Amino acid sequence: MQKLKVSIIGSTGYVGKELVKILMNHPKVELVYLTSSTYAGKNIAEIFPEFLNKLDKKLINLNLDVVSQDSDMVFTALPHTVSMDVVPELLKKGVKVVDFSADYRIKNSAVYQEWYKKELNQISKGLLSEAIYGLPEIYSDKIKDVSLVANPGCYPTSVILGIAPLLKYHFVEPEGIIIDSKSGTSGAGRKLSLNLHFAECSGNFKAYKIVKHNHIPEVEQELSSIYFSEDDNKYQEKGIKVSFTPHLLPINRGIFSTCYLSLKSSKKEEEVLEVYQRFYQKAPFIRIFKPPNLPEIKFVAGTNYCDIGFYIDERVGKIKVISVIDNLLKGAAGQAVQNMNIMSGFPETCGLV
Amino acid sequence: MQKLKVSIIGSTGYVGKELVKILMNHPKVELVYLTSSTYAGKNIAEIFPEFLNKLDKKLINLNLDVVSQDSDMVFTALPHTVSMDVVPELLKKGVKVVDFSADYRIKNSAVYQEWYKKELNQISKGLLSEAIYGLPEIYSDKIKDVSLVANPGCYPTSVILGIAPLLKYHFVEPEGIIIDSKSGTSGAGRKLSLNLHFAECSGNFKAYKIVKHNHIPEVEQELSSIYFSEDDNKYQEKGIKVSFTPHLLPINRGIFSTCYLSLKSSKKEEEVLEVYQRFYQKAPFIRIFKPPNLPEIKFVAGTNYCDIGFYIDERVGKIKVISVIDNLLKGAAGQAVQNMNIMSGFPETCGLV
Amino acid sequence: MQKLKVSIIGSTGYVGKELVKILMNHPKVELVYLTSSTYAGKNIAEIFPEFLNKLDKKLINLNLDVVSQDSDMVFTALPHTVSMDVVPELLKKGVKVVDFSADYRIKNSAVYQEWYKKELNQISKGLLSEAIYGLPEIYSDKIKDVSLVANPGCYPTSVILGIAPLLKYHFVEPEGIIIDSKSGTSGAGRKLSLNLHFAECSGNFKAYKIVKHNHIPEVEQELSSIYFSEDDNKYQEKGIKVSFTPHLLPINRGIFSTCYLSLKSSKKEEEVLEVYQRFYQKAPFIRIFKPPNLPEIKFVAGTNYCDIGFYIDERVGKIKVISVIDNLLKGAAGQAVQNMNIMSGFPETCGLV
Amino acid sequence: MQKLKVSIIGSTGYVGKELVKILMNHPKVELVYLTSSTYAGKNIAEIFPEFLNKLDKKLINLNLDVVSQDSDMVFTALPHTVSMDVVPELLKKGVKVVDFSADYRIKNSAVYQEWYKKELNQISKGLLSEAIYGLPEIYSDKIKDVSLVANPGCYPTSVILGIAPLLKYHFVEPEGIIIDSKSGTSGAGRKLSLNLHFAECSGNFKAYKIVKHNHIPEVEQELSSIYFSEDDNKYQEKGIKVSFTPHLLPINRGIFSTCYLSLKSSKKEEEVLEVYQRFYQKAPFIRIFKPPNLPEIKFVAGTNYCDIGFYIDERVGKIKVISVIDNLLKGAAGQAVQNMNIMSGFPETCGLV
Repeated sequence: MQKLKVSIIGSTGYVGKELVKILMNHPKVELVYLTSSTYAGKNIAEIFPEFLNKLDKKLINLNLDVVSQDSDMVFTALPHTVSMDVVPELLKKGVKVVDFSADYRIKNSAVYQEWYKKELNQISKGLLSEAIYGLPEIYSDKIKDVSLVANPGCYPTSVILGIAPLLKYHFVEPEGIIIDSKSGTSGAGRKLSLNLHFAECSGNFKAYKIVKHNHIPEVEQELSSIYFSEDDNKYQEKGIKVSFTPHLLPINRGIFSTCYLSLKSSKKEEEVLEVYQRFYQKAPFIRIFKPPNLPEIKFVAGTNYCDIGFYIDERVGKIKVISVIDNLLKGAAGQAVQNMNIMSGFPETCGLV
Repeated sequence: MQKLKVSIIGSTGYVGKELVKILMNHPKVELVYLTSSTYAGKNIAEIFPEFLNKLDKKLINLNLDVVSQDSDMVFTALPHTVSMDVVPELLKKGVKVVDFSADYRIKNSAVYQEWYKKELNQISKGLLSEAIYGLPEIYSDKIKDVSLVANPGCYPTSVILGIAPLLKYHFVEPEGIIIDSKSGTSGAGRKLSLNLHFAECSGNFKAYKIVKHNHIPEVEQELSSIYFSEDDNKYQEKGIKVSFTPHLLPINRGIFSTCYLSLKSSKKEEEVLEVYQRFYQKAPFIRIFKPPNLPEIKFVAGTNYCDIGFYIDERVGKIKVISVIDNLLKGAAGQAVQNMNIMSGFPETCGLV
Repeated sequence: MQKLKVSIIGSTGYVGKELVKILMNHPKVELVYLTSSTYAGKNIAEIFPEFLNKLDKKLINLNLDVVSQDSDMVFTALPHTVSMDVVPELLKKGVKVVDFSADYRIKNSAVYQEWYKKELNQISKGLLSEAIYGLPEIYSDKIKDVSLVANPGCYPTSVILGIAPLLKYHFVEPEGIIIDSKSGTSGAGRKLSLNLHFAECSGNFKAYKIVKHNHIPEVEQELSSIYFSEDDNKYQEKGIKVSFTPHLLPINRGIFSTCYLSLKSSKKEEEVLEVYQRFYQKAPFIRIFKPPNLPEIKFVAGTNYCDIGFYIDERVGKIKVISVIDNLLKGAAGQAVQNMNIMSGFPETCGLV
Repeated sequence: MQKLKVSIIGSTGYVGKELVKILMNHPKVELVYLTSSTYAGKNIAEIFPEFLNKLDKKLINLNLDVVSQDSDMVFTALPHTVSMDVVPELLKKGVKVVDFSADYRIKNSAVYQEWYKKELNQISKGLLSEAIYGLPEIYSDKIKDVSLVANPGCYPTSVILGIAPLLKYHFVEPEGIIIDSKSGTSGAGRKLSLNLHFAECSGNFKAYKIVKHNHIPEVEQELSSIYFSEDDNKYQEKGIKVSFTPHLLPINRGIFSTCYLSLKSSKKEEEVLEVYQRFYQKAPFIRIFKPPNLPEIKFVAGTNYCDIGFYIDERVGKIKVISVIDNLLKGAAGQAVQNMNIMSGFPETCGLV
């Protein structure tokens, strides 16, 4: 069988590196080009010696003509507001795209502009209606038919998957949702920053971007869409608003979201378990923990799983949900490959653990 | 000047060790006895080589007669439900006591029994009316006159100090308070546990005791007392109930509490700052951070400070408060010495950093 | 094709767990029994939730009749001095064995007794001549024909692989070899120990078993055998003696050995590189780093590789060799599977990364 | 009593910060100026919130006239090859200096030039004869009379203190000394570096600067001087040469040096203990561990101690010495204050723990 020809634009960040690791062993993929503006001309094993004897591949500068000509699918791991200049070119040449930036995640371009401080270009605005938010557990039916998938953010993946069933079945109030998330440092990427130095992070814990983290709009868009089950426009007027606080964990990888919601009425554990199992019955990467068992980051690190547990706090009428993922896998590269699998008609779990 | 003669019952846990470190350098204290049921007969420097050349002191088995005869003040670092058998004996002999257990923290002995699964003995029930909850920022006026201080739990210290001013001045609703706390592993003590092994904690993060952590009753008792400004009995009927979730951080020491409260009405940063500064104007170990600055665990590790920051989230009508302490110092040994200083007429900060 | 039926005796230690992870995905293996004296009766996913949705297998108590009847190959992950009572029974019933203990590593049973403080039983003494030390990079020709492989210790694997070529080609003196090794905490296993608690290891580093680590005899046996190229008995009189110091790293997994040897004569980098490449030309899991590149633990963590680098220190006539492995994989479970592959005629790398 | 007026040039690196922490509580010091080229104009508590409520001091740009006019003593925490342009100016104005750079450590300016790739300026060459290498355990008699102390490097402090007694009393051969050192990441300073990011260091361990670490010449100079007990010139021809390998530990602070030396003749533990105790009888910050006890980094972290332990490895005729310090304290700021104390006639331990 002909293998799918895949290239990666931006392959030497932490996400790009994970993507290479998955794709080089994916049985249905041929890795074509790896681009890197920083390390072009070097072999990837010079940058990441982990690849020695495993992958012999030179990094190249991005040339859209070359990349699109030889690739069936391209992963664009570019910064927010940069992808919009690259993705339309690829699509125009018939290449399918999984984009890691936020540029095609937000359906309302005014909201995008408010949070990302840049206007989406015209051609990209036109693409918003065809781009699908790449959360396979919710949108797999649509993902299989599209050419452009907007791969979700890491925090939103953990949060949306964690509480979607409760909202879908109206077990909880849409107001007053509180999300307390904690992420490993790899989530901040490989850019130089004193705040990310070992001597600064080790033995420490802190909140950051407490004011307005730009993952909020996609969380609110998707939660509103799930709860209101209507057209996305409603989100503007009466959409769900969450209180979201990200924190920095002194670990390498993993996201742990503790979500607090108000139950509409008293529920038993079995009822809650049942709606989770129903909602995720076809989702191979979701594991629901039966109370009092709870997920931990080490259970999902290095995997594409999202583990979810909960506790009904009857004393205060709340339900606490804990949702954990590996930020680089289910929160980025793994989920992107899951999307690629669905877009390409491969088994959803192919090449993933 | 005659120094205060001080003994420690239970001196080889993590809290006991910190207490020894502080007291051996305290200018107004003479360390008399250190007891340890596990290591009696050994020198403390054999157990903790940190003390080599600094402290030459043999650990002894607990003998209440001897300890009480030669001590003006005793710190009892014993497990919950064990202190109640020791503390009354010490008080009877005229020794002042700072007790680290929960036995004298909960004013309502039925609530104590519900959470700690043991009935308080009669003599200890009788002591509840004279024991003072040892949070000097709130009770220093009473602490200076008593013989028995119930040193607060580590989580409660961070939580109560973090949000007391907002409740005192009725800036926030007493319902729906959510506390998401994270603690370093030293908070779990030195007892053997596979869950506390490096190979289990490193690179991991998890919630624990999510159902009913026994620090909840003292948090609720104190918050209710602050908000309702009435007699403690009211706490039973209409007291504040909090949703509290503790998590285990892969760090050695420190507690970080993220608290979510609903504002009664829109407030400006300056107004909030003002009530915090007013409430803590005489508190030498409280530091209020002006937004957007926020506390981090590393700012307080190794100190007796409680650092507090906040953010008004107007989008959802909430205020988020972050309160951090060193769990072994302000959360235990440091606060105990602060109480001792007040009880003894020493400057409140004496011997503390 | 009929799959190889494999069982694991002692499957819930850190090594057993890694072994299960590899074997459950191994394309030529059917996992039959997992034994555990501690957790018999439970599902392995109850002990290690990582296995949820991946492996549904009940842990059983060891029953040698049952295990040997239904297994072609058994991995025995038992303590030193315990394996000797189990392995002969398995062999007698025609089962092939890869044993993780030291019981069959030491050719001279008097040396074994000296270091492990117990006499090898008679039947096991008789097995010493047929047991092969399972270092495939050196003994693959013999491993493919035997029924009993003594899987090497983790430190010895890193040390022997690191310096074997230099000894083989007599580039270095056999005297004065110094090995300074550092290991992650998983090397100490899952037994309860205060020394392994996070609060004790985090931010710390220390040497341990500095006097006589029981990995020394196998290192000396193998290095002598390589250098003297004669019968093993010579090792007694004029064998190589090494100075070996293990240290505990505050990381989860990985061994890093820094080896210091005296060059017999001045050598160029190319000459050294050449002997390493020649020695390991058929070894798929050895990666030689060209100076000034050097291996790091993160390059091999989670893999079966042994990465080796070196530096010729002309100022002092020494060569420094750095050899790193994942202690749980190339140092234990991965190497065991590599041995199983060779013993079973599978490709050496099958199921390993 | 008039306090000593002290300023710090370069106060916002990790060493500078520790120095401020010590000096602000030093009973005999008045902190005058803190300079910082990066943060001039800001309050030090804005850079390091740890100082909130403790130290209210504005950082200034370096002005040598102002600094020298108002200071009795200045600590220069400047990069190697930069100090040489500043220190002579300070001395000229009658200010005493403790310099943290290597510029005045190496008595032979040709050796300095070889290792630091820059020629020492003329005036600094002239100062070499009066500058004293600031290791108080060896040079306290000279330190008390000089105006310029060259504060030792962190690695050299641990190494020289660790093995000086063995060389002094000729217990060991001067050839073949091997030093395997491990340092926490704070030793690399606060400069931006991807290699120092948490995501790169966490769970990792590596060697670095294996070829020629510039701490080697001062180690060799001092060890030679101790062993040969002659004029420094001899060091050129027949001086001690060490094999030194530094490694990066995933911890914040601490240096652990494992030193391997050949015994000239068989020695008993008591004999070795005796020479250590004799050599360090007046050294308040040295703690000698009686075998089999060994130092660990956590025993010295946060203190000015150097803890030393050893093991006589009779099997191979070697002695292993373990020497540990806190790299920021005994390896830098603490030792500098110890030197200041001696230079100023204060008790050697004043202000230090």
